[in-house]
Amino acid sequence: MTVTSEDVYALAPYAETLGVRFQRLAADGVEAELDCVHALSTVGGGLHGGALMGLADVSAAVCAALNGPENAVPATMQSSTNFLRPLHGRIASAVAQPLHAGRTTVTVEVNISDDEGRLCVRVVQTIAVRAARG
Amino acid sequence: MTVTSEDVYALAPYAETLGVRFQRLAADGVEAELDCVHALSTVGGGLHGGALMGLADVSAAVCAALNGPENAVPATMQSSTNFLRPLHGRIASAVAQPLHAGRTTVTVEVNISDDEGRLCVRVVQTIAVRAARG
Amino acid sequence: MTVTSEDVYALAPYAETLGVRFQRLAADGVEAELDCVHALSTVGGGLHGGALMGLADVSAAVCAALNGPENAVPATMQSSTNFLRPLHGRIASAVAQPLHAGRTTVTVEVNISDDEGRLCVRVVQTIAVRAARG
Amino acid sequence: MTVTSEDVYALAPYAETLGVRFQRLAADGVEAELDCVHALSTVGGGLHGGALMGLADVSAAVCAALNGPENAVPATMQSSTNFLRPLHGRIASAVAQPLHAGRTTVTVEVNISDDEGRLCVRVVQTIAVRAARG
Repeated sequence: MTVTSEDVYALAPYAETLGVRFQRLAADGVEAELDCVHALSTVGGGLHGGALMGLADVSAAVCAALNGPENAVPATMQSSTNFLRPLHGRIASAVAQPLHAGRTTVTVEVNISDDEGRLCVRVVQTIAVRAARG
Repeated sequence: MTVTSEDVYALAPYAETLGVRFQRLAADGVEAELDCVHALSTVGGGLHGGALMGLADVSAAVCAALNGPENAVPATMQSSTNFLRPLHGRIASAVAQPLHAGRTTVTVEVNISDDEGRLCVRVVQTIAVRAARG
Repeated sequence: MTVTSEDVYALAPYAETLGVRFQRLAADGVEAELDCVHALSTVGGGLHGGALMGLADVSAAVCAALNGPENAVPATMQSSTNFLRPLHGRIASAVAQPLHAGRTTVTVEVNISDDEGRLCVRVVQTIAVRAARG
Repeated sequence: MTVTSEDVYALAPYAETLGVRFQRLAADGVEAELDCVHALSTVGGGLHGGALMGLADVSAAVCAALNGPENAVPATMQSSTNFLRPLHGRIASAVAQPLHAGRTTVTVEVNISDDEGRLCVRVVQTIAVRAARG
């Protein structure tokens, strides 16, 4: 299954609204980034936790879909996020990878780093993947 | 401590960018809502999980600050989200309440419901609250 | 479906090993308790977090099974625990209730309190419930 | 700081009660194991989730203490667990490593594997580490 950024934006408009850009869309790793702009910031000037969780959620959902059955529609059931340090700088870079791919759910780990490659946010999501009814 | 929507938007610009409106800003309960618009949606037309976690994070942070020391700056350390059902309709309504207020951290529970009052999302966050240096 | 403590011990021997006693086994609420003995304690003398999570896990699994299809076998997929205060005293009392019962998963909230009824631990679990093959 | 299994058992009696054995006690990695015995099992014969979370909690707490200030007492604030597959076999092997060590909290990742080295359980904990008062 080949997926493009346009496919993701069409299915999940919030991904485009938030400003997520995809560098890589593959089953073994989805890479995406978000600019650290004032509109997405919080106290202290770093990226807001809500924007960071949005970046993670968007990336993890695509990763889960790519690890599910053909045309699987991802639905996040559970998301656990640890904020390790504030994310300042120019860009937030997310990498989403499958921890385990089951028949009906995929568990995805997302790591978000800053410009210096320091891990700032760790997310693990349990995502249901069910084949779309044709 | 009295806090207004404008105070929150000034400190956390992402809250305004996302479109969060506050109905109540008090230590024992922060109430906020978000319109279910296409730009914030996902597959199937419901509100995107990232937008919902943004609404929860914004509400919980204000609740934590109001339960912390004077002029406390909230910093979310951990956030756990359970998505119970898709949120469709007109408005997502969040209520954030303190589960426990400690000296340096506040644990906040957020419940997000749809127009019919059905619980769609449950979030629990651990938030550090440290007095701002004067 | 009627379930007894003996049924739970037979299916999940760890419940008996840990020392969990059930007061109530019903779909809308499972109540269980654990004695605060030295063998289950940690630094400072309170109940160890591992024992508390064991009590929660045992209680939540039964609650999920009672909310699933006939003869459902529960399998915890995700568990999020917030430790709000140390649990000292004589007994830890857990109440597990369904937050949402879906077709294949049940989300259960568990609250564990001390002798004075103070909330010490909050757990939310996502539990798969699949009908046992006959 | 050098720590022995006996130190851990003395401080946290539940670690010994559960049957946790330590292979390595170092700041950059705590390794521990638990036998898959009937008394710790659940439906299907695998290790019970409560026993697995106990193993993880014990390992993470020691790891956090070793990454905190001298004589730090660890207190788990939040624990998120993903059960990826049932753990059958002879032994459950846990490795706890710091994701981030802050001044007052340490975030620890624990991976629990089976005899074949397959990842069965992933845990992330936020643990307060405060210097014991002398």
